[in-house]
Amino acid sequence: MAGKLVLVGAGPGDPELLTFKAARAISRGDVILKDRLVPDEIIKEHAPEDAEVIDVGKKPGGEGWTQEEINELIVREGSKGKTVVRVKSGDPLIFGRGAEEIEVALKHGMDVEVVPGVTSAIGVPTSLGLPLTHRKCASSFAVATGHEDPSKPENRVDFGALAEAADTLVVLMGARRLREIAREILEKRGNEPVAILERGTTEQERVKVGTLEDAAEGKLKARPPAVVVVGEVVKWWREVLGRETR
Amino acid sequence: MAGKLVLVGAGPGDPELLTFKAARAISRGDVILKDRLVPDEIIKEHAPEDAEVIDVGKKPGGEGWTQEEINELIVREGSKGKTVVRVKSGDPLIFGRGAEEIEVALKHGMDVEVVPGVTSAIGVPTSLGLPLTHRKCASSFAVATGHEDPSKPENRVDFGALAEAADTLVVLMGARRLREIAREILEKRGNEPVAILERGTTEQERVKVGTLEDAAEGKLKARPPAVVVVGEVVKWWREVLGRETR
Repeated sequence: MAGKLVLVGAGPGDPELLTFKAARAISRGDVILKDRLVPDEIIKEHAPEDAEVIDVGKKPGGEGWTQEEINELIVREGSKGKTVVRVKSGDPLIFGRGAEEIEVALKHGMDVEVVPGVTSAIGVPTSLGLPLTHRKCASSFAVATGHEDPSKPENRVDFGALAEAADTLVVLMGARRLREIAREILEKRGNEPVAILERGTTEQERVKVGTLEDAAEGKLKARPPAVVVVGEVVKWWREVLGRETR
Repeated sequence: MAGKLVLVGAGPGDPELLTFKAARAISRGDVILKDRLVPDEIIKEHAPEDAEVIDVGKKPGGEGWTQEEINELIVREGSKGKTVVRVKSGDPLIFGRGAEEIEVALKHGMDVEVVPGVTSAIGVPTSLGLPLTHRKCASSFAVATGHEDPSKPENRVDFGALAEAADTLVVLMGARRLREIAREILEKRGNEPVAILERGTTEQERVKVGTLEDAAEGKLKARPPAVVVVGEVVKWWREVLGRETR
């Protein structure tokens, strides 16, 4: 009996931004593996009472589980015929190593199902009325991660080229490298407006608006988890919604 | 009394991919403006019995409402102090002219709230196990529309540049111009694999896999609504999940 892996997206933070399909998937889990940023309310409200809930974001020692340990756990529980529900924040296949989990589960004969979620890259700006596309100034957007696998230097994101090609650029997990990333974009794109959206859709939400120069000079900082949006749409948003640093 | 506009994302097609927050917003509407691709079930299940539901995707004559007519409707109902819930497929601010609706509502003193949704650009590939990002081959993705405002030729999407800069490229509303778009990408990117996902997450879902050359030569076609995904991730998906044209 090879069990089943269900990858589920929990949305950007607000527990209400869970989909009905995701709630149903969680309610059918024998074992639930929860990421660090997934709100506890989601699990409390939807997981079966007798499900085993494992927070793979932290261990008693303080460290999180490694991807290899999570993969082993999926396979071990699957081999008992169990339904393993892997709940990730945002969408489960956007920068979440979900592809690797699909691969390992299939290799061990498990069934796999994937339930999309609202990604923070889009859901956080949208919830604040900041559109990544606009008929007048943005017909495309790009999403990149600021935190890449260090074992893969050749695949480094070229933020300058992305910002040149796409009308709006969204950077996830870029808080710690923001100065460097802002410099790269500034060089190719000029001094565009920047919105920094920290802990979006939660009660701890914090919004800052500035420019690429501010960010490159370290005057505009981001604390993780943050969604960084660069482009003309930020100007529109500031003018129409009156968004200021707060 | 200036009323309220609530922009709501209904997700990519499967009514279960609605969020709890979106359902709650719909349940509070006095007037509900529904787009063509929003499933009827969503409105039937969540709208109040006495709400006025208007399908702005079609009129008795067959044509849809123009954006200007929709804007006027929002303002007219708002001026009666009503809560106007505008339900769009996918996410309400991704290629849906939601920004213009926010602008007109604010100009007339209405309150505005936006509830994100699962965009088809991500939700459709994810539901099929096709990851737009992958630790080994995709640290960024770009999303563009193949159907632009014809009054804005200077802002045309440069698909070649986007495909060169981003690891994965997603084209929405590109079915009718697929040959032309494929040629542009082919020139800059070489012959990459392409997945065409028609009516994703619905019972009419249809998946085709081929290459940019197939698409450029018209051997691989797309019927709208389709999500087109280009990049190395399609190869991974085909190999790991065994996806074939069907």
